[in-house]
This record gives sequence, structure tokens and C-alpha cells, in this order.
Amino acid sequence: MRVLGVDPGLTRCGLGVVDGLPGRRARLVHVSVARSDPALDVDQRLLLIERALEECIEEHAPDTVAVERVFAQHNVSTVMGTAQVAGLAMVAAARRRIPVALHTPSEVKAAVTGSGRAEKAQVQTMVARLLGLDDLPRPADAADALALAICHLWRPAGALGAPQREPGALTPAQRRWAEAEQAARRRG
Amino acid sequence: MRVLGVDPGLTRCGLGVVDGLPGRRARLVHVSVARSDPALDVDQRLLLIERALEECIEEHAPDTVAVERVFAQHNVSTVMGTAQVAGLAMVAAARRRIPVALHTPSEVKAAVTGSGRAEKAQVQTMVARLLGLDDLPRPADAADALALAICHLWRPAGALGAPQREPGALTPAQRRWAEAEQAARRRG
Repeated sequence: MRVLGVDPGLTRCGLGVVDGLPGRRARLVHVSVARSDPALDVDQRLLLIERALEECIEEHAPDTVAVERVFAQHNVSTVMGTAQVAGLAMVAAARRRIPVALHTPSEVKAAVTGSGRAEKAQVQTMVARLLGLDDLPRPADAADALALAICHLWRPAGALGAPQREPGALTPAQRRWAEAEQAARRRG
Repeated sequence: MRVLGVDPGLTRCGLGVVDGLPGRRARLVHVSVARSDPALDVDQRLLLIERALEECIEEHAPDTVAVERVFAQHNVSTVMGTAQVAGLAMVAAARRRIPVALHTPSEVKAAVTGSGRAEKAQVQTMVARLLGLDDLPRPADAADALALAICHLWRPAGALGAPQREPGALTPAQRRWAEAEQAARRRG
């Protein structure tokens, strides 16, 4: 199971690819930060980020693309670019029939640190530890992209060490999680 | 000069193509509304809208794509999808090296009605009048897309009936407008 995590942003977009299997340590495959120059027009900036996203998908062929869910109430000065890059990531995956998953920042923090309110440094530390890296992933966007991928690999079925099962085989708690996730995805 | 106006939206995205020349009545080439079912996942909805955008661009080969500038403070429940579709429209144009222009809703309303605070019905009435249509363009998203295209055709040089000129040949007022537009585009 290979997951591409995308921490969307117009100036810096984190891209992290992680392999994982139930009961095995997650493995770093790729991490990078796509950048675009704020002096360029927005359409050109979006095009640069889209190309980096598509190259990453083509090169690493993820089974799922996990994208940070963007909320309107977040940082107003950058939220439009962030939403647009998240949209590009979703479409780049959908064009290739790769499933898309959305995870909130607090879900991601909770998945790797145990706390939905963890600081950025704590996320970096835990991502390095969970992937067995000698150095902290930098900048924070890179760590966040890897954390997103780990969060997706560790959804309940995976976190319990069980193989992915059909919906009918889920425990009641897993089914509630899956239903909540589906409902959240529909609300977009 | 052919302009595709895009009124971005995830449930309804207005697409309006208008031809115009200085001193000549603008001419309707195409108008449609791309739709996506709110019951689908967001990535699939974005993919449907992207396909409609690309088909429209391929079929009508606009010289410019004019997109409504989306602000974070607008309708919070729909602004993310609106921003994402605006981003897709910008990238679809940029991929084909078609220039992109952004216009605010109040610029568009002012261009076709004389008032930046005009009601939707007034915009529909004026779009029909300016394009010599027998019926009002419906729904409002279709009228807004056409109004965007007209707004772009009628930027100062066009509105004065003069042919498009090099930057050095602009009047001081036209230069200020062009500079403000450039600055606004960079801010995104």
C-alpha cells in the first residue's frame, strides 16, 4: 500500500510518499516540496505546482492520494491558493482513477503524535521516528505531507494490524469511522 | 477577440463565450452551465467540471479566459469548491498558454450595469440587451459568465472604442487600471 500525502500550498506544497503494510513499519519512499514564486501570476503558479504533483504521481504510482482538508475559516490570506492546490491534487488523482482521501489537520496530528493539537516540531519529530529517519524532515510542509500519508495508512483497519476488509467485515467502530469519513468527503 | 468567461462553482459553473471588437456589439458564441452532483465525492465533482471546462476551451479556442476572482470572506459553505473550480479554470488556460484575467464580482456588475452593487436580475437583463438576445440568459450563473466575458472585452482600451495598444500608448488612467489589475493578479 503506497500513499502520496499532499500538504497543499501555493508557495510551498509538501509531497510525501510512504509505503506501509499492516503490522510493518512505514517506509519513506519520497519527500519533496514543490514551490512557486509569489511574483508570478496565479495561473502560472498553479501550473507549476500541478506539474510537480503530476510528476510525483507518475513517478511513484501511489495507491491513494491523501490531501489535507482545507477549511474556509483558516488563514484567510493564503486559503484560496491552498484550496486551489488541494483541488489540483484531487483532480490529478481522479484523472488517473486513483482514490482520494481527505484528512483534517487535527486527524493527522493525532495520528502521528496522539494529540490533535500538537506543535509542528512534535509532528516533525514523530514523523522522523515513525519512518526511522536520522534527520527531521524539513521544511514543516514536507513533514506534514509525510504525516498525512502515515495518517492514511493508519486508519482504523490498518492501525489495528488487520488487513483491509470489505465494508461488511468492519467492526461497528470502524464502520462509524468509515461512514463519518464518507459523509465528510461528500461535504467536501 | 474571443473571451471565455467562467463563473466558478462546484454545483453549477457558468461558461460564456463572447466575441468582441472595439466599437462593435459583443456577440454571443456559446453559453452553458457545467454541473456536478453534490452526492458525488469532491474529486469526482472537480473532474467532471474540469472536463466541461476543457471541452469548452478546445471547442471555442478563446484568446483569453476571464475568471471571477474569489474572496475568502464570501459564502463560507461553498467558497472552497468555488476556489477550486477557479483554480482548475486558470490551470486549464495556462496549460494551453491562454492568458488568464481575474475580475471581481463588483467590476463585472459595474461593467454591464453601471453599478457594482447591481442585483442578479439586472445583470441578466443587461447581458441580454448588450448581446442582443431575445431571452434572459438563465440560470444566473450563465448570465454571470457572459457578464465576465463582456467585462473583460470592455476593459478601458476596448471600452473607449480604441484598438488594443502597447502599454506605452495607454493614457495615464488606462495605465493606472492596468497596473492595479497586474498587482491584483499577483496577489491572487
